Amino acid sequence: MSAAATRATGQDHLWSVDEHLKDILATVRPLEPIELNLLDAQGCVLVDDVTVPLSLPPFDNSSMDGYAVRVADVEGASEEFPAVLTVIGDVAAGSADLLEVGPGQAARIMTGAPLPPGAEAVVPVEWTDGGLGGGPVSAMPARSLSPEGATGQVRIHRPAEARAHVRAKGSDVKAGDLALAAGTVLGPPQIALLAAIGRGTVRVRPRPRVVVMSTGSELVQPDEELTGGQIYDSNSFALTAAARDAGAIAYRVGAVADDAETLRSAIEDQLVRADLMVTTGGVSVGAYDVVKEALTSVDVGDGDGDEGEAGGGVEFRKLAMQPGKPQGFGLIGPDHTPLLALPGNPVSSYVSFELFVRPAIRTLMGLEDVHRPRTSAVLRADKVLTSPAGRRQFLRGTYADGVVTPVGGAGSHLIAALAQADALIVVPEADTSVEPGTEVEVVLLG
Amino acid sequence: MSAAATRATGQDHLWSVDEHLKDILATVRPLEPIELNLLDAQGCVLVDDVTVPLSLPPFDNSSMDGYAVRVADVEGASEEFPAVLTVIGDVAAGSADLLEVGPGQAARIMTGAPLPPGAEAVVPVEWTDGGLGGGPVSAMPARSLSPEGATGQVRIHRPAEARAHVRAKGSDVKAGDLALAAGTVLGPPQIALLAAIGRGTVRVRPRPRVVVMSTGSELVQPDEELTGGQIYDSNSFALTAAARDAGAIAYRVGAVADDAETLRSAIEDQLVRADLMVTTGGVSVGAYDVVKEALTSVDVGDGDGDEGEAGGGVEFRKLAMQPGKPQGFGLIGPDHTPLLALPGNPVSSYVSFELFVRPAIRTLMGLEDVHRPRTSAVLRADKVLTSPAGRRQFLRGTYADGVVTPVGGAGSHLIAALAQADALIVVPEADTSVEPGTEVEVVLLG
Repeated sequence: MSAAATRATGQDHLWSVDEHLKDILATVRPLEPIELNLLDAQGCVLVDDVTVPLSLPPFDNSSMDGYAVRVADVEGASEEFPAVLTVIGDVAAGSADLLEVGPGQAARIMTGAPLPPGAEAVVPVEWTDGGLGGGPVSAMPARSLSPEGATGQVRIHRPAEARAHVRAKGSDVKAGDLALAAGTVLGPPQIALLAAIGRGTVRVRPRPRVVVMSTGSELVQPDEELTGGQIYDSNSFALTAAARDAGAIAYRVGAVADDAETLRSAIEDQLVRADLMVTTGGVSVGAYDVVKEALTSVDVGDGDGDEGEAGGGVEFRKLAMQPGKPQGFGLIGPDHTPLLALPGNPVSSYVSFELFVRPAIRTLMGLEDVHRPRTSAVLRADKVLTSPAGRRQFLRGTYADGVVTPVGGAGSHLIAALAQADALIVVPEADTSVEPGTEVEVVLLG
Repeated sequence: MSAAATRATGQDHLWSVDEHLKDILATVRPLEPIELNLLDAQGCVLVDDVTVPLSLPPFDNSSMDGYAVRVADVEGASEEFPAVLTVIGDVAAGSADLLEVGPGQAARIMTGAPLPPGAEAVVPVEWTDGGLGGGPVSAMPARSLSPEGATGQVRIHRPAEARAHVRAKGSDVKAGDLALAAGTVLGPPQIALLAAIGRGTVRVRPRPRVVVMSTGSELVQPDEELTGGQIYDSNSFALTAAARDAGAIAYRVGAVADDAETLRSAIEDQLVRADLMVTTGGVSVGAYDVVKEALTSVDVGDGDGDEGEAGGGVEFRKLAMQPGKPQGFGLIGPDHTPLLALPGNPVSSYVSFELFVRPAIRTLMGLEDVHRPRTSAVLRADKVLTSPAGRRQFLRGTYADGVVTPVGGAGSHLIAALAQADALIVVPEADTSVEPGTEVEVVLLG
């Protein structure tokens, strides 16, 4: 009997789901940071604290479209007895060379424009005659159409306190403040802040590149013709989509035939673009389970002179779990790339992805929160659910408002029911049945 | 006074947030469906019901690695008194030409392989000697290393009921069944099902292409040098990221200067790749508000011979809202592309995006659920919150476990506080203050 066969048959120990997950998360390390353009860093984790290099706003500026005035000039102003000021010109947003506002003068000013020297407050245009000599206006005419608006006189209908409608320099953030802490996930508002303080690039952990490879000589690509004994490859599609959903850049490699040499060569080819490899199928106890065969029969590329070869460091286990009993995990190739070898049944591979691959991807990203949320729910079912003793069972269900309802049976080939589910119902190892109305743990698939 | 200035100044009416949103959603229509490759359709909405063209599984097949047997041959079998059968060969997954299992015979069979003619059940390999003549085994040796495993004799240690470990043809779905209903959002499990029934492409509403354009002569791109009166453009980054987050394919066009001709030409250039245009800035009551100027002063391209020009159909309004009072919305260009013109203050534009643009994007995608989730929460604050009368205020806050805490003040330039928030606190139009401990409505930004 060969060494591979001995190894394959010598393990009756059942590992728990938690032991397997712990081993994966103890091995997979966050990716090395890289500097990315701001928009390419969306969804990524910031590696360093970012401090503010310049205060925001960088200068006192107007929060309104209106007139920059001296407080004394508008004291006691009303619509009946307006303060009449000479308009010395416009201060638009982006203006650099600023007019000085002297006594009896006003500058027409736009939102965001710097408060000109001499001015102490801004009066909104709605509290003036807009320079038109009538009652209060609701807007300024466009400069390009009415250039005369920047000249002449303006009647101010209300007084202004010092600093009214002025945003002070540094009132948002001050130079030296912490803008964002290391570990922050960059969503739109965080990207806004980084741009606002002038950061065009940022150091983050990149999205992991995940290669998804299905195996099985029975697999045919969708849209092709099925002949006897064949089925369509669905795992490579499902897990590529799931990897993208988890935050990865995913590459699909569909349906490698059940031949160890072919598989080993396909894996070696893909390693160059993989931060994580995921295979489906070929991990159980059959005579054609080539993933197991290919990855347990060669040396690990760990600097022993065998670095061109993939494989070796992968351990195959049986887990106390249903579906998803057979699982493989290890490091392969010269870069010790993590590989998760999932079972081939569609539901098994998908559940395994959610439990093991998703947390691995999110760990590579440097995220703290790597797991799907869980909650408790009341089981609504028309009969008792049964579960094998000593196995943690993950049934498919739909969750809403604290109630979970199973969809489909326990069979790991039931793809149609999986497509209706948005939750996994967890039945602990010790339980062999669950009565309707019982409180159960639920994994929300989101 | 020009027509533009008249229009700009003639509207003191305040529109409600709900009126504005309703007008947008009554105008924006879901995009025309297209046929996409399965993985390109992730996150998209299915347009037609998809029925199952072939039953799944397409044939009776084994759910285990083991031996395909006739029930009578293994009746009463035990480890002490095994049934001894002649192994006639292997049935691997994907096998087409199947051996017939006669009386006294067994075929070694792999998970997923078709049940061969004559066989009535499958006995898992763990309940046999695996053909090795010893006790029970836990796996088969690999075929490539031990080809003799497909020959000789096997001892079966347990009886099997008819159909044991056989998945019946059609037990997942049957030809003609509804696989997925029109309106389904395609996530990984739905993609799995489509692939499994042989669909390599699928008809969905595509992701909308959204062009995000910031305007303002004061805006400088991050990583460049600021001079007097300038600030960094953050809106185009924030809203591009937010559009992607909402499901769109987003293109950023940063910082068009405050010149109506330049802006109009930039918008015309971009229209060719836009299903939706979003601008920021230039919509208020100032003399340099060019978005308003550019889009209210030209004809709409509605077949009146002026189709090359952008603009015209955009209406500018004041909303009873803080931040985000000035807003523009309309259809522009020859294809009547929807355009949302948002205010330029960073917090105003972001809040406006969440309230108006996100639902528009999700409507274009054909999604039913276009809004951010809302919940009620208890306000935790160390002082009373104030809000202007007659305005619906959206304050930034952090939400956890039914409690919301404001971050930062009401100022619409406070980007740093926005970057700490994960919720908007809604203060209704009628309320001018909110006591700590009050139940408030919260928009969860997710």
